[in-house]
Amino acid sequence: MSFEKKEYEFLTEIGIGPRNDGCYINGCWKASGPIVPTVNPANNQKIAEVVECSAQDYADGLQACYEAQKIWMQVPAPKRGDIVRQIGDALRAKLQQLGRLVSLEMGKILAEGIGEVQEIIDMCDFAVGLSRQLNGSIIPSERPNHMMFEMWNPLGIIGVITAFNFPCAVLGWNACLALVCGNCVVWKGAPTTPLVTIAMTKIVAGVLEKNNLPGAVFTAFCGDAEVGQAISKDARIPLVSFTGSTKVGLMVQQTVNQRFGKCLLELSGNNAIVVMDDADLELAVRSVLFAAVGTAGQRCTTCRRLLLHESIYDQVLGRLLESYKQIKIGDPLEKGTLLGPLHTRTSKENFEKGIQAIISQGGKILTGGSVIESEGNFVQPTIVEIKPEADVVKEELFGPVLYVMKFQTLKEAIEINNSVPQGLSSSIFTRRPDIIFRWIGPAGSDCGIVNVNIPTNGAEIGGAFGGEKATGGGREAGSDSWKQYMRRSTCTINYGNDLPLAQGINFG
Amino acid sequence: MSFEKKEYEFLTEIGIGPRNDGCYINGCWKASGPIVPTVNPANNQKIAEVVECSAQDYADGLQACYEAQKIWMQVPAPKRGDIVRQIGDALRAKLQQLGRLVSLEMGKILAEGIGEVQEIIDMCDFAVGLSRQLNGSIIPSERPNHMMFEMWNPLGIIGVITAFNFPCAVLGWNACLALVCGNCVVWKGAPTTPLVTIAMTKIVAGVLEKNNLPGAVFTAFCGDAEVGQAISKDARIPLVSFTGSTKVGLMVQQTVNQRFGKCLLELSGNNAIVVMDDADLELAVRSVLFAAVGTAGQRCTTCRRLLLHESIYDQVLGRLLESYKQIKIGDPLEKGTLLGPLHTRTSKENFEKGIQAIISQGGKILTGGSVIESEGNFVQPTIVEIKPEADVVKEELFGPVLYVMKFQTLKEAIEINNSVPQGLSSSIFTRRPDIIFRWIGPAGSDCGIVNVNIPTNGAEIGGAFGGEKATGGGREAGSDSWKQYMRRSTCTINYGNDLPLAQGINFG
Amino acid sequence: MSFEKKEYEFLTEIGIGPRNDGCYINGCWKASGPIVPTVNPANNQKIAEVVECSAQDYADGLQACYEAQKIWMQVPAPKRGDIVRQIGDALRAKLQQLGRLVSLEMGKILAEGIGEVQEIIDMCDFAVGLSRQLNGSIIPSERPNHMMFEMWNPLGIIGVITAFNFPCAVLGWNACLALVCGNCVVWKGAPTTPLVTIAMTKIVAGVLEKNNLPGAVFTAFCGDAEVGQAISKDARIPLVSFTGSTKVGLMVQQTVNQRFGKCLLELSGNNAIVVMDDADLELAVRSVLFAAVGTAGQRCTTCRRLLLHESIYDQVLGRLLESYKQIKIGDPLEKGTLLGPLHTRTSKENFEKGIQAIISQGGKILTGGSVIESEGNFVQPTIVEIKPEADVVKEELFGPVLYVMKFQTLKEAIEINNSVPQGLSSSIFTRRPDIIFRWIGPAGSDCGIVNVNIPTNGAEIGGAFGGEKATGGGREAGSDSWKQYMRRSTCTINYGNDLPLAQGINFG
Amino acid sequence: MSFEKKEYEFLTEIGIGPRNDGCYINGCWKASGPIVPTVNPANNQKIAEVVECSAQDYADGLQACYEAQKIWMQVPAPKRGDIVRQIGDALRAKLQQLGRLVSLEMGKILAEGIGEVQEIIDMCDFAVGLSRQLNGSIIPSERPNHMMFEMWNPLGIIGVITAFNFPCAVLGWNACLALVCGNCVVWKGAPTTPLVTIAMTKIVAGVLEKNNLPGAVFTAFCGDAEVGQAISKDARIPLVSFTGSTKVGLMVQQTVNQRFGKCLLELSGNNAIVVMDDADLELAVRSVLFAAVGTAGQRCTTCRRLLLHESIYDQVLGRLLESYKQIKIGDPLEKGTLLGPLHTRTSKENFEKGIQAIISQGGKILTGGSVIESEGNFVQPTIVEIKPEADVVKEELFGPVLYVMKFQTLKEAIEINNSVPQGLSSSIFTRRPDIIFRWIGPAGSDCGIVNVNIPTNGAEIGGAFGGEKATGGGREAGSDSWKQYMRRSTCTINYGNDLPLAQGINFG
Repeated sequence: MSFEKKEYEFLTEIGIGPRNDGCYINGCWKASGPIVPTVNPANNQKIAEVVECSAQDYADGLQACYEAQKIWMQVPAPKRGDIVRQIGDALRAKLQQLGRLVSLEMGKILAEGIGEVQEIIDMCDFAVGLSRQLNGSIIPSERPNHMMFEMWNPLGIIGVITAFNFPCAVLGWNACLALVCGNCVVWKGAPTTPLVTIAMTKIVAGVLEKNNLPGAVFTAFCGDAEVGQAISKDARIPLVSFTGSTKVGLMVQQTVNQRFGKCLLELSGNNAIVVMDDADLELAVRSVLFAAVGTAGQRCTTCRRLLLHESIYDQVLGRLLESYKQIKIGDPLEKGTLLGPLHTRTSKENFEKGIQAIISQGGKILTGGSVIESEGNFVQPTIVEIKPEADVVKEELFGPVLYVMKFQTLKEAIEINNSVPQGLSSSIFTRRPDIIFRWIGPAGSDCGIVNVNIPTNGAEIGGAFGGEKATGGGREAGSDSWKQYMRRSTCTINYGNDLPLAQGINFG
Repeated sequence: MSFEKKEYEFLTEIGIGPRNDGCYINGCWKASGPIVPTVNPANNQKIAEVVECSAQDYADGLQACYEAQKIWMQVPAPKRGDIVRQIGDALRAKLQQLGRLVSLEMGKILAEGIGEVQEIIDMCDFAVGLSRQLNGSIIPSERPNHMMFEMWNPLGIIGVITAFNFPCAVLGWNACLALVCGNCVVWKGAPTTPLVTIAMTKIVAGVLEKNNLPGAVFTAFCGDAEVGQAISKDARIPLVSFTGSTKVGLMVQQTVNQRFGKCLLELSGNNAIVVMDDADLELAVRSVLFAAVGTAGQRCTTCRRLLLHESIYDQVLGRLLESYKQIKIGDPLEKGTLLGPLHTRTSKENFEKGIQAIISQGGKILTGGSVIESEGNFVQPTIVEIKPEADVVKEELFGPVLYVMKFQTLKEAIEINNSVPQGLSSSIFTRRPDIIFRWIGPAGSDCGIVNVNIPTNGAEIGGAFGGEKATGGGREAGSDSWKQYMRRSTCTINYGNDLPLAQGINFG
Repeated sequence: MSFEKKEYEFLTEIGIGPRNDGCYINGCWKASGPIVPTVNPANNQKIAEVVECSAQDYADGLQACYEAQKIWMQVPAPKRGDIVRQIGDALRAKLQQLGRLVSLEMGKILAEGIGEVQEIIDMCDFAVGLSRQLNGSIIPSERPNHMMFEMWNPLGIIGVITAFNFPCAVLGWNACLALVCGNCVVWKGAPTTPLVTIAMTKIVAGVLEKNNLPGAVFTAFCGDAEVGQAISKDARIPLVSFTGSTKVGLMVQQTVNQRFGKCLLELSGNNAIVVMDDADLELAVRSVLFAAVGTAGQRCTTCRRLLLHESIYDQVLGRLLESYKQIKIGDPLEKGTLLGPLHTRTSKENFEKGIQAIISQGGKILTGGSVIESEGNFVQPTIVEIKPEADVVKEELFGPVLYVMKFQTLKEAIEINNSVPQGLSSSIFTRRPDIIFRWIGPAGSDCGIVNVNIPTNGAEIGGAFGGEKATGGGREAGSDSWKQYMRRSTCTINYGNDLPLAQGINFG
Repeated sequence: MSFEKKEYEFLTEIGIGPRNDGCYINGCWKASGPIVPTVNPANNQKIAEVVECSAQDYADGLQACYEAQKIWMQVPAPKRGDIVRQIGDALRAKLQQLGRLVSLEMGKILAEGIGEVQEIIDMCDFAVGLSRQLNGSIIPSERPNHMMFEMWNPLGIIGVITAFNFPCAVLGWNACLALVCGNCVVWKGAPTTPLVTIAMTKIVAGVLEKNNLPGAVFTAFCGDAEVGQAISKDARIPLVSFTGSTKVGLMVQQTVNQRFGKCLLELSGNNAIVVMDDADLELAVRSVLFAAVGTAGQRCTTCRRLLLHESIYDQVLGRLLESYKQIKIGDPLEKGTLLGPLHTRTSKENFEKGIQAIISQGGKILTGGSVIESEGNFVQPTIVEIKPEADVVKEELFGPVLYVMKFQTLKEAIEINNSVPQGLSSSIFTRRPDIIFRWIGPAGSDCGIVNVNIPTNGAEIGGAFGGEKATGGGREAGSDSWKQYMRRSTCTINYGNDLPLAQGINFG
């Protein structure tokens, strides 16, 4: 059996065949659930088939993972770091192929597909250093002959449920930290990007096997919402990291909380760029273009709202409309393409429904607004003039649709920026320090990502990534995000012979 | 109008009279809800009356608080710290009176009442220093001419819902941090300790007023569950800090999450002390006594389970039974009393129901087990021999009931310790480093507080206080607990003229 | 015996009389060295007499201090913090009197005298919080069953040698940190400000005594360079914190290093303010005035060099000359005075010599340049136009002399700023983010203090204070300055039974 | 021209030939100083020849390095981290050969030679992560509209002077941190290990060249003390990291301080192992053996003093003498060898002089004490019974000589441990927590490395490495050692329009 198309043959270099078992369970590839095709969003033709996870597969996988955690958490952290280093090196060796697969199966342009894999490699490098810096604290005790420690220990198993738009980077953010912190990982990738899930897992699995570690340290399932629900309900999984919509995220959270587990949520964004009167307009326009059209508007950090100071409103809008005309739409693997297809037919339908809602709520389509007739899921990049109060502006329409609004003062711009339920990313373009520091200060943007003179998207891994309010509050990648993957304990050790009490209390 | 009993006259020194308005709203004391009495648990006689919060009071209070936050968050943190310093000094001046009131209204012995107020004073001192150390980070950017900041900004308003057992210390933990972090505080104290709520608030209010700050920076309500629900549902309150039972805590969490708010939960504990064969038994027995009987077993950190190594089981139990005989039960304000009343008649009834359940599940009462006939809510300190598997052992019975169990190996002791839903506190008594470090390590106690050779209760404020699993995961007081009261933003500032993208992506 | 002048009578409120023993040794005030007068720099009349330290006094003091350290380092840090809190409260109670004495004996204006004492109070408040945060680290070990700690322990005794210009604040910076860190303090104040030394010490001593602590925890000597040399040579003093000239500082350093001790040096500054073409000139001129004339130019952070962009050179200079005309010179205790006397007659002579050197090296006196005929040590505030290359510009002339220079580009301004041996403080005035971030970045100012739109002087205690290059490299007050007062140890504890070696080495 | 011995041919794989230019200057290999041979300490036969550095070479090298720093410090830190990652990978590829060369030229056994190179690889991995974590702080300002930053910027050029005993690891510790921090490195290796210097540099150079970076970012010189003096005096080098004897270190320090530069000193050690009565003697004896005999006693962390509790004195000494008999002495490259030669003929002579001094001061040779007649520099592993007060015990005799002493109490053991001028490493063997925590606490060991149940040597890179007192106070490798390679600045930015002063001062 071989691939139907010659252009898919590169997949064999990363372990993908025409039919693929979709579960990595206890170090073995197998699966006994339904067989599903995975398709190329640029033409909706089948790439390959995947056997999905059955209930029994899940049970077997978790059982093995539960046993593996006991071994893995006893491996010293710097040794765990060395495993993650090897994963990074293995990814480096397959960067082109894996990036190409991301592009093929998800639909983002090749530069972004490769960039996504590069981000995991960066995370691996970062996590290696971290493996010697997962520091606890020794805190001065108020009692003689007492030591007070703040210890960080592994949680055990981390469930990671990822979305189609970053089919492997989000796994990378989570898994690199989870692994160096001493946790096993249970991954459920998006149902529509199973090949990425499988290829990525094969790379991790290869490293585990080479080091004679239990494969179950990393357990992966291709499957649909049922697997996600199983993870949410499973009391053996103390932390579930979920990336997806606010609506589903809330359900996951309530399920996990009910069993006293924790969630790390990366949910919807509704990100604004504010352009002040003194902005470098050239920089602003290029940034808006990347932020609104990149990944076909399917990043959680995609710019969905453009807030223009009235004095430069017409000028920026004019330049932007000009730029939109020149956007090359087409096969994401083709050189020069800036805008690939939406990920699925459903996405395309949602785009159409969204446009109708926009129009019915008084939005004015300045450019775009239609789907493109083709075998793939292509739509036009769209700019809409609309009032900030419109209901549709409060929601996340997952496609290349940009709402443009006018404001007069910084205060007003910040109010509009903060007026949506979501709180992921935001940017301002200005050269005035007073505006910059107000924007990032207590009365500024209420988002988790607050940029100046760069787009809303494109975060570096050194900082913490995530958002406030309906975006869920989780933080991934850099800073002290690793702490979410560990449990903290405050330990007081009395090594003397007396029993002094805190706050000088005398008892008995 | 004057107090019915002369012994309550000291209350006038801390602003309490026979009838008291129970809300501090926009800098004024008023209340238009029902009038309720507050009683002394030692005799169930009325101390004074309190007018509780009405719906309108709540609405007025929140509105004023919402306005006050805009002013308070702009006050530089070190200036906010100085206000908290003054609160600490004001408390120091009223330590005896306030401690006495805690003892009178809650029922804990005087040493503990004063200790509770001392803990707030300690927190104030700690928070003053913190006000110059709420540090963000400057993180190296991978892009030239870019700065990456991690900023911490105030959340706005913190809702604090506290329980009767620590009627003011828990407020202190939260408010000291919340205030220096730049947040206003909305406090609902326990319905059965309104005088403490009022007296504590008057001290804070005095400082605010002296400094010409809006009183609404600190807003307090006496009232019942309805006020708590209003706070949970109020989208103007980004963080609700709740202390109470796991059952109610879960409801609060789901309500708050639904509106995209955050919770800081301090819920039920079910804390074990493990005594190893090599332990200093004298130290262990004294610790168990304080941990199981102190505060009449109504601390969240009360020791409820005693795990004894088989080799010292009889010896420790014998000593403990001997000690229990000598516990002086009586008026908590009287010198020498070790065990005061339970807080309410309902607590006493729950104790009786609990004892019945224990017996029906095979528990053997070794001492105590009965309520004490009197006007107050007194019960006997109780020791029960029972199997770790009994259902009743998995729950938190809020009274002086200690379950004793036998084990053979450290591994077994840790498994029993970790086998309950709650994860607050735990202690081991041993002198062997290998046991100490295993106990605090990845395969050790799964609690938030993991002690060695001290009781489960009596935490210092320098460490983070709180627990895992059904205990809710919140952390209060020391370490980096302050971060929960702030929102974090990752800020990238491009001060150059180019637009390099992260991960080296090239777009357009 | 009473004070000759009635205006000195307030001194009795802070324990100062007409004749004062100048050493606080083992909890007692005594001294057997020479009797010296202390004078008012505004009129060179005697304020009071002081008996200085003899060699025997030094020996006795150190011996007692050496014993006291063994007790003090065993007091838990939070308890030490409470002592420092009490010192802060005792200072608060005497703020006006102590501030007035600083002003009287040193010569700075009253607002600055009080500000100096306030700074110690701020430090006390800060150090109290710190006493629960002197955190060590628990670092992940690469070996199983090993713990790795980074511990911070007290050094023992800290020698503090301070200068006349901040006769008590610098002691405060050092002592607050040294004390909470568990060290005893040996203080030698400036020979010309002994009353401040004594009054300050009495406040500390009062607190120690009230708490039944050995007075020798804080040991103070009035005396001259011989005492300083004794401290430098004394192997019982692991750290000597020295504030003074670069020349003397280097000698201290070599003496201390020779016996394997450490130094914390705060030496000469030569601080520039750069005014860019886009600066807020009003803000800049006011800042220069405060920075150049404040404390009569006798701060280590005094602005000595003013670098003006050519485009605003004439305008700023014009405004500045205008402002200089209106500076009120006179008794520092009098309301409205901005410029008091230099500290000593020698200072006045050095001013005159400095002016001669300036002229001989081509400097042009634009205003001032003369001493003022009077009983006191008054000189005119002086502005000099001079080339940056002149030798005199490379040195610190301790008086109100400002060198003005012209530049064309930011690069040039930074080069001039960095071209002196000293590296303490520096400021730029601009509103352009690119300039701000270049100024504080790798190719910017090489000083320890790098300001924007504020003067070179007037640091907050939350940050680390100190400078690079000839300024000596020490850091005092905030950030992690406390680490200098402790010794760090990396501790690896093997609690297992095996002996694995780092780097996987196999030996034997 | 080819190597005289076939066994040296592996050197060609790491760029070493029979004659080698000893300077890497501005990206080129050249040298115009004297030609010197390098010899194998096991037989004192020539391995190869090296052309050393001339004064002109030094001048050229520094000039290029000074230019290169301007480029390198502008490269974003994470990009610098990626260069260090590549260096680590390049070392990994040559681990065996480079380890073998270390063993051949220095004389340590092969396992240690490879371990030394592995340590640099570990450092590279660690430094990569660090390159995204060289964090500054954002500190709350007490003034409205002000930001306070603590920034860390590169120093520029770091001079690294290393010793023969770790001919490349110490360079690795320094260079990895220096490079990610944005500094160029100027390295002078030991005069007797030039081939290691050259081979190591070639690996670094290869990476720089592949990345089109100036070779002068890393500048290396083979040469003798004159090069070291040039570095010490060179004002273009703000930090000199020196490893060597206390005597030379002090001279370096004074030279560097004189020009206002800083030193990072790793000087002599005199490290004790304390064995308590309850110790695991098997573990203790094996540790002493590794610590006293490993690297032929030529580690700075070598155990030189063994402090035995009187109750186990005879037993431990007996076992140790037994073990010493079985130590295989011989060619370090041969399998099974535990003790290779001393590094030079001079070392052998110093050993002989040392033994004479020991005997003359009352030391009793229990085993060993003689040189071994051979072509190489072999000496016997030696145990000496001696009083702690003997002068010779206070000094570092660089060879396999162990002084054994008896003590009665922990206090006495700690006093002996702390009674030498040096303060590098120390270990205790015990299983009692009270002893462990006293040993690592304020009244415990005064060393920079304080171990429990492991030897004095064999540090992990995650902790800070270095010692107190005569050991010089520097810290290398982990923890926050990187801060020494950067300059800290406290930056206050006023972005408002007012000029409030700190401490509430009012000026004018």
